[in-house]
Amino acid sequence: MDNDVVLLDHGSGGKLSQDLVRKVFLRLLEGKSLRDLDDGAPFQAPGTNLVTTTDSFVVDPLFFPGGDIGHLAVCGTVNDLAASGAEPLCLTAAFILEEGFSLRDLEDIVSSMVETAREAGVRIVAGDTKVVPRGKADGVFINTTGVGAVISRNPIGGRHVLPGDRVLISGTVGDHGVAILAARAALSLHTPVRSDARPLWGLTKAMLQSGAEIHALRDPTRGGLAAALNEIAFQSEVGIEIDESSVPCRTEVRTACDLLGLDPLVLANEGKMLVMVKREDADAVLETMKRHPDGAEARCIGRAVPSHSGRVVMRTAIGGTRLLDMPTGEAWPRIC
Amino acid sequence: MDNDVVLLDHGSGGKLSQDLVRKVFLRLLEGKSLRDLDDGAPFQAPGTNLVTTTDSFVVDPLFFPGGDIGHLAVCGTVNDLAASGAEPLCLTAAFILEEGFSLRDLEDIVSSMVETAREAGVRIVAGDTKVVPRGKADGVFINTTGVGAVISRNPIGGRHVLPGDRVLISGTVGDHGVAILAARAALSLHTPVRSDARPLWGLTKAMLQSGAEIHALRDPTRGGLAAALNEIAFQSEVGIEIDESSVPCRTEVRTACDLLGLDPLVLANEGKMLVMVKREDADAVLETMKRHPDGAEARCIGRAVPSHSGRVVMRTAIGGTRLLDMPTGEAWPRIC
Repeated sequence: MDNDVVLLDHGSGGKLSQDLVRKVFLRLLEGKSLRDLDDGAPFQAPGTNLVTTTDSFVVDPLFFPGGDIGHLAVCGTVNDLAASGAEPLCLTAAFILEEGFSLRDLEDIVSSMVETAREAGVRIVAGDTKVVPRGKADGVFINTTGVGAVISRNPIGGRHVLPGDRVLISGTVGDHGVAILAARAALSLHTPVRSDARPLWGLTKAMLQSGAEIHALRDPTRGGLAAALNEIAFQSEVGIEIDESSVPCRTEVRTACDLLGLDPLVLANEGKMLVMVKREDADAVLETMKRHPDGAEARCIGRAVPSHSGRVVMRTAIGGTRLLDMPTGEAWPRIC
Repeated sequence: MDNDVVLLDHGSGGKLSQDLVRKVFLRLLEGKSLRDLDDGAPFQAPGTNLVTTTDSFVVDPLFFPGGDIGHLAVCGTVNDLAASGAEPLCLTAAFILEEGFSLRDLEDIVSSMVETAREAGVRIVAGDTKVVPRGKADGVFINTTGVGAVISRNPIGGRHVLPGDRVLISGTVGDHGVAILAARAALSLHTPVRSDARPLWGLTKAMLQSGAEIHALRDPTRGGLAAALNEIAFQSEVGIEIDESSVPCRTEVRTACDLLGLDPLVLANEGKMLVMVKREDADAVLETMKRHPDGAEARCIGRAVPSHSGRVVMRTAIGGTRLLDMPTGEAWPRIC
């Protein structure tokens, strides 16, 4: 590029906009519909039962151990489609750039999106770029929106959970939240924590194809496991019991949480799937998860119960119980 | 709402996030998939030939004569789908809110989106809200992404234009650009100019169903008519000739442009469709446009020619010609 930062004119719709689109986005994001530069991008769906989901990413910092905003933006939307029981068909990507943002950083972020989309087997088919003056945004914000084709045989959603269902989690909790908070605080942890951000369609597809009766899937991001479980308990009007000692959590995440006064159960995850499955099918799904690299540390952590409808109760390691409430007032903005 | 401004915790994923979603978004945006609060929203497509398009809206000011950012966000994406020859099926809406933003203004914006979506006959099925600290955004940014079903019989796109095709525009140019620039400069115009922002699916559907062979449609937003024509000339490798005196433009827009030293041909439109149609079908399409309220002022303004491939030439009122180039360096950010 002739200049090494984003200029206001890069958002004007004129020549410099074209330059930015051609030299950064089209060069990195290979795709016929993008190259055609029309107002919309055509795609073929394999059927008519579709799902859509949207997420804007405003993570701070933009680059962190284990990923960056571009990687996160692809993982987040792919995982929301997966959690809907849907195979990701295509993504759109829309950028809001602050005047003065480094074009080198933008290229790194777009490259990261391309790589993650390839890993997830999904195409980025349409895009948009806006530029706002210095001080009116913070570097770059990215929206990704996805369309997926439903492949689950039974309906999947927070309201389909039944008492008796088992609660499975595909791996350790809190990694992403700690990675971001430590990076933001420039906190030097003895053992650095990396974000778990990864696309989970492969793992989810294996679970769906196993034939198990999965009732709900959830990508426990903002608000962590606590928020996801509370949402499901509310939607299905069931109680949920979690065994505290069975929730997988890395030692370094626990240590950082102790240091920072945080609860790993309310910290964001970006590469974990929460699964609510019919009791009889739980063992088989757990085995399927463990055989997949993204589910090697999967565990059964609890069950849905007919009592205390809408509430999540934690059985503690010392035999007591406590309410695991919907998180309030943590004020950690920009985790994703 | 208990508080009248957006708080950081509204973006935490916890209780306050739920409150915001339930009290503002779900109350105003009626829709089953939204109420289900799952990670994705299901929808049915009538066929498998689909189109998707994405746009982020960062317009400044947020409220302007003839519309607001919410109205614009729905019109923009509906019109991009229409310009792809596709019936809008569903939209997603993602909000980036600045801490301290007025919840009353947010409600007004969301209400405006609901009303415009109803007018356009499209559902908003999924949403997202993020909050960034004060000074890290500017009030509210909105991304809308849409999915549409292709109903055009022949392929429509900038690369399908042929020499001989006629160039039609559905109405006056420059209204939106002047409305925004005048509002931003608090310019007191003798006759105020209102934005033309409106959803154009009704008009476009009538054109597509007329049986005419339409080769390209374009929503001439940023960069105006000049950018849209240059893009098409480049994509189809044709020349385009425009008759300056036939381009419709309101007197008050011309006056404001003279005052501000602007060219109405490079100003954004948000409620106009540019149509490239087979010569033999041009008159019929023009009649169809004129019969529709959103095309009452439609005109034929030029033609595609085999010479000067990739370039747009203007025949001036006094009989000369000039090159109508891709706009450069206007530096009017945040027009949409």
